[in-house]
Amino acid sequence: MAVNLKPPRALLAVRGVLLGSAAAGLRGRGRGRDDLTVVTLNDGAAVAGVFTQNRFPAPPVTLCKRHLRNGKARALAINAGIANAGTLGEGLEDAKESCRLVAALAGCRAGEVLPFSTGVIMERLPMKKYARGLQQCANNLKADGWLRAAKAMMTTDTVAKGVSRKISDGKRQYNITGIAKGAGMIHPNMATMLAFVATDAAIGVAALREWQRDIAAETFNAISVDGDTSTNDSFVLIATGEAGKPSARATRKLQSDIGEVCKHLAHAIVRDGEGAKKILTIRVRKGKNAEVCRRVADSVARSPLVKTALAAGDANVGRLLMAIGNAGDGFAPEKVCATIGGARVIKNGGLDSQYKEQETAKAMRKAEVEMEITLNNGNASATVVTCDLTEEYIKINASYRS
Amino acid sequence: MAVNLKPPRALLAVRGVLLGSAAAGLRGRGRGRDDLTVVTLNDGAAVAGVFTQNRFPAPPVTLCKRHLRNGKARALAINAGIANAGTLGEGLEDAKESCRLVAALAGCRAGEVLPFSTGVIMERLPMKKYARGLQQCANNLKADGWLRAAKAMMTTDTVAKGVSRKISDGKRQYNITGIAKGAGMIHPNMATMLAFVATDAAIGVAALREWQRDIAAETFNAISVDGDTSTNDSFVLIATGEAGKPSARATRKLQSDIGEVCKHLAHAIVRDGEGAKKILTIRVRKGKNAEVCRRVADSVARSPLVKTALAAGDANVGRLLMAIGNAGDGFAPEKVCATIGGARVIKNGGLDSQYKEQETAKAMRKAEVEMEITLNNGNASATVVTCDLTEEYIKINASYRS
Repeated sequence: MAVNLKPPRALLAVRGVLLGSAAAGLRGRGRGRDDLTVVTLNDGAAVAGVFTQNRFPAPPVTLCKRHLRNGKARALAINAGIANAGTLGEGLEDAKESCRLVAALAGCRAGEVLPFSTGVIMERLPMKKYARGLQQCANNLKADGWLRAAKAMMTTDTVAKGVSRKISDGKRQYNITGIAKGAGMIHPNMATMLAFVATDAAIGVAALREWQRDIAAETFNAISVDGDTSTNDSFVLIATGEAGKPSARATRKLQSDIGEVCKHLAHAIVRDGEGAKKILTIRVRKGKNAEVCRRVADSVARSPLVKTALAAGDANVGRLLMAIGNAGDGFAPEKVCATIGGARVIKNGGLDSQYKEQETAKAMRKAEVEMEITLNNGNASATVVTCDLTEEYIKINASYRS
Repeated sequence: MAVNLKPPRALLAVRGVLLGSAAAGLRGRGRGRDDLTVVTLNDGAAVAGVFTQNRFPAPPVTLCKRHLRNGKARALAINAGIANAGTLGEGLEDAKESCRLVAALAGCRAGEVLPFSTGVIMERLPMKKYARGLQQCANNLKADGWLRAAKAMMTTDTVAKGVSRKISDGKRQYNITGIAKGAGMIHPNMATMLAFVATDAAIGVAALREWQRDIAAETFNAISVDGDTSTNDSFVLIATGEAGKPSARATRKLQSDIGEVCKHLAHAIVRDGEGAKKILTIRVRKGKNAEVCRRVADSVARSPLVKTALAAGDANVGRLLMAIGNAGDGFAPEKVCATIGGARVIKNGGLDSQYKEQETAKAMRKAEVEMEITLNNGNASATVVTCDLTEEYIKINASYRS
């Protein structure tokens, strides 16, 4: 069960964006459930994307990167069930064909279509079913299709993930809506993750790309479920411009709110991490530079021993020390201090004399745990959010395909 | 339960080495079980050590490194239950005191004593119990104390780990005996691991150190249970010289057999990995250099998704592709091929057209699985041995202290 996460009640429409979903029969299990979505964008929408760093990017990722070079797109096709990854030239042909099919339905060129797939790796898309499904999607395109689209792309997710914000600059209202899916293979540099965030404000491609890079580093690339990075991860940011150009002040607010939407989605992915029962936020402070802080936070977030201690609500602070100690160079072990839920546990590289096991155990038993690690050799910081490692994670992943 | 691993029936004595074990009451659970061992070495024994790379080495590790600078030692003290790690200056004082106590019993200087601790991190040794235990150990020193010593240092291990070899050069017989303990926090660069290997052949310190470095890279540093590296890992290689200097030919055989003993112990640690039900050997071939091969093997060995697929006996080859793809630079994705249990699964970066799911699933269901990854851009290779990730691992680690 997801940790303190409920599905969104309603998501705001974003002018210029229409979404249609359908059950194309692409899922191994759960046939009959929606698994395909077509999204159309108005002419003139600015689109930016960041993608997996895995050395085997799926063919849809390859095409997305190619089609996004000019920062424009007219349609997206998103399917769950099959990732169309590790499928080589045939998979690339399938992805190209999917672009052509969507282009025919949306009245645009294939080069203006972005394909996305998530699900089992190394299986090919059943193109006949896929094509029939696209037609159904095209038949029910609507402005308020966001929530259904969020549900259609779920794989091992247990809760649909989406959130909206609206801001106003007095003259006009600008909407932001984002949807995402996890839930395993989640580690920095994207994962099995898909995230789509759109606003109807007018933002140029250059600014949009810059915003996206900064936001991704702080949100989707600062979470970890199991340390694995998938072949298909994609985060797309869209500005349709249909609501016009916001004032300078509203633009700043818009950037900040898009960041908040992404943060919500990123954290929702961790909250719904496979088998997750608890959430751990690791803040590393006063480090030499952001990279060192990030490395320390990652080492803790990846440690199976920290994650199982978290699952057990066990104040095993020695495992925290061990995980920090495996983070390589760039900090002085004898300066490291740490707290768990505000309770002092590590001081100057050893057990804090103020340490009280009861107090720490109490903090570790909460559903949301915060660890703060102070390196005391600089002014940089980094935060990574992860979840616990539970027997449920093993159950889910030992049976996902069978 | 350990995978295809039985405790040794008998271990050969090594001339110059005496071992005495006792129950000092250091274990949180399992009081009454042996948990302390004193080992004495003849004057003139050559001793080499490699230790954890964790940034928070335990005080005993700090002292071992210091005392081994001259390649000599006269006694070892090994305790389970408490790791004396993250214990700062007080822990260092305790470790120094343990050396003084052993020195008094063994009739040597404190600087000739090597202390080792394994168990819970960030708790201090109860020095009174420890001192009483040392006395008991000293009272039962004997040449055939190896097996009892192997048992005394077990923590979450389920099977005692030890192996002996003997070789002869016509004139004389040389014995080799090694013991080790795991079983979690096992990842390259040592872990919660302790390993002690001794021979009665005369080998100079310089040669011994060189042998050890090469052997460690191929054995103890080429295994992974959970990717965590502990604060206390130590591997000590001893040549007492009591059986004299072997011929050049016997020396080569000795080096090779010490390597085999270490390989046996390293694999025994994986076979008894926490919760392990299956063993996975990952061979990476034809890589650009050993470092790249090792990185690819490590990425596969660390992937929770590969390890849970292994647990399930699921031919989820997409996860293998994903894990290889997360191994960074130095190989060409489009040249990567792989087999599982000899069955072809990946060719040129995608699903092999010869792939047969049934055949691969059959290989994945075996207790011992081999994956061979061919990078096809060089002549280097590397092998890493790991185990599956099971619900049992979580159970063990969510309750280890409680």
